[in-house]
Amino acid sequence: MDIALVGFGSVGKGVAQVFSKKQNQLRQKYDLSFSFKGIFTSRGAFLDSNGLDLQSILNIRDLTAHSSWKNDLSFMESIDDLDVDLVIEVTPTNIDHGEPGKSHIISSIKKGCDVVTANKGPLVVAFNELQRLCRRGRCILRYEGSVGGGIPVFNLVRETLQGNTIHSLRGILNGTSNFILTQMTYERTSFESALKTAQELGYAEADPAADVEGIDAASKTVILANGLFGMNKGIDDVFIQGITKVTPEAIELAKNDNFLIKHIASIEDGQIEVAPRLIPVTSTLAVNGTLNVISLQTDLAKEITIIGRGAGGEETASAILSDVINIHCARTTLS
Amino acid sequence: MDIALVGFGSVGKGVAQVFSKKQNQLRQKYDLSFSFKGIFTSRGAFLDSNGLDLQSILNIRDLTAHSSWKNDLSFMESIDDLDVDLVIEVTPTNIDHGEPGKSHIISSIKKGCDVVTANKGPLVVAFNELQRLCRRGRCILRYEGSVGGGIPVFNLVRETLQGNTIHSLRGILNGTSNFILTQMTYERTSFESALKTAQELGYAEADPAADVEGIDAASKTVILANGLFGMNKGIDDVFIQGITKVTPEAIELAKNDNFLIKHIASIEDGQIEVAPRLIPVTSTLAVNGTLNVISLQTDLAKEITIIGRGAGGEETASAILSDVINIHCARTTLS
Repeated sequence: MDIALVGFGSVGKGVAQVFSKKQNQLRQKYDLSFSFKGIFTSRGAFLDSNGLDLQSILNIRDLTAHSSWKNDLSFMESIDDLDVDLVIEVTPTNIDHGEPGKSHIISSIKKGCDVVTANKGPLVVAFNELQRLCRRGRCILRYEGSVGGGIPVFNLVRETLQGNTIHSLRGILNGTSNFILTQMTYERTSFESALKTAQELGYAEADPAADVEGIDAASKTVILANGLFGMNKGIDDVFIQGITKVTPEAIELAKNDNFLIKHIASIEDGQIEVAPRLIPVTSTLAVNGTLNVISLQTDLAKEITIIGRGAGGEETASAILSDVINIHCARTTLS
Repeated sequence: MDIALVGFGSVGKGVAQVFSKKQNQLRQKYDLSFSFKGIFTSRGAFLDSNGLDLQSILNIRDLTAHSSWKNDLSFMESIDDLDVDLVIEVTPTNIDHGEPGKSHIISSIKKGCDVVTANKGPLVVAFNELQRLCRRGRCILRYEGSVGGGIPVFNLVRETLQGNTIHSLRGILNGTSNFILTQMTYERTSFESALKTAQELGYAEADPAADVEGIDAASKTVILANGLFGMNKGIDDVFIQGITKVTPEAIELAKNDNFLIKHIASIEDGQIEVAPRLIPVTSTLAVNGTLNVISLQTDLAKEITIIGRGAGGEETASAILSDVINIHCARTTLS
């Protein structure tokens, strides 16, 4: 399998690391041999038609010093000449226009490549368009890493709950806001003080708006609504309320009655929303710190809840690897 | 796909109900058409080489009055004449000798049938023997329903965490003992009183030994050790301690320090055990009532926890249905 990796931030580096580490295991267990032909960063690309040495790229301090480095070369300029089967798209998320990921994915599909992405942007703005393009081009698009980091939710439903109808979903989809609410609950601090702690620990960005205003969680909810429930929703269809107005007093009142205030995403009866909600302390949704959780109401298995780390380079790379293996297995049995 | 169903208790009836209900969905979504050629109960069998009408069997009050009924006919007597691709084995569990399930499964494999089972007995006493027979006969044996009812744990690892190495596992695998400990914790009752409540609510058997002594959870742990970790363990390899000696005083002491006492199954460093353990109230293992939970420590996705109902006819049938669909898809792409 010849692969192009587009995006080389923490997730892209995680992908390179994980594929490098798992090379032998993938060959032995899944008969999957792979070769990275191109790795595209924001400043240029590594290109080698014989396959890049991932470890040498991961180890080098000055990327431009690498023998395969091409300054300023972009994926869009290169795609016509790239000889790859699969594109892994992990550039930064933009949920207003989905770029540059959206163009990367569309060009890849039009070229006949399968695509694995963890980039929420293209999925939020163009989910059904991308699915249509895939059907027409007989390509496979997978996006397990776009929601819940290493938590397998799309593959869980597709591969392990196949006979079930999913009625509804509730979950916590943003680790930063969950960390802040957890701090406010157990350390009895204000929102501002908890946010500062989150920033000091590297859990929150300097501009935390996307996390604490609920935009990030809402984006993931849109992808879940379209991917698991076959809906056709955009970010404007989500009722969004952030956690910036949650007070220590409200949390204390809730605690006195054995409730927690959690930032809950939900998809129910065609309605999708992200908002602070009261949750019993004994609920399976009552997970703390930076954990994410997704709880599915199904007709046969009833409620199935899955918990894990919602972010992290290696965790997200785990989801991407799972998608790549699934595509490899599907392609092998089809050929 | 021609199917024989062996065992017609709550799980067997759940299987018949679920397959009947999902008939159209299975045809449309997975191109899976099926026909039940035989259903075997402890008192006789329903046989029809043209396929049984599941609903008519589920609706009838006196089984022997059904036109397809054969009094006293057993699966072992019938197997040579049965023209089926797949056997669903859901007779009662016996973990001492594994019978009658073990013989049913071995005969089915020898005849070239794929097997789906939720019966712990044969898996506890003969896991690796059954796997060897399957490899030799090119048959598939699946057993998702044997652990955790409707919770997909084997398929979760196989189909959604493929690139990951599983380092260790902890979980709560018996709903009855979890219900009793939950009652003791939140209602502050004695073990005996909580057991009585569990029996009144139908959560515990008249003879609750297998649940409260940890034998049932230990059986499931053996299956997890062999199925997920490639071990070769039997029930005698498990360190087992029941919950009968847990006192309300111990639970109260734990609570004062924000811990719960839970009946924890664990597989770690080659050691497997089931015993009462202290768990922080904020742990993802701190699930209550009759819920089951399984938490996996993996190298890439880190800790992944899945929670759901560990028992119930329809829940277990959900796991069986998932196994049947997986086998159907594997067989379709192989042919």
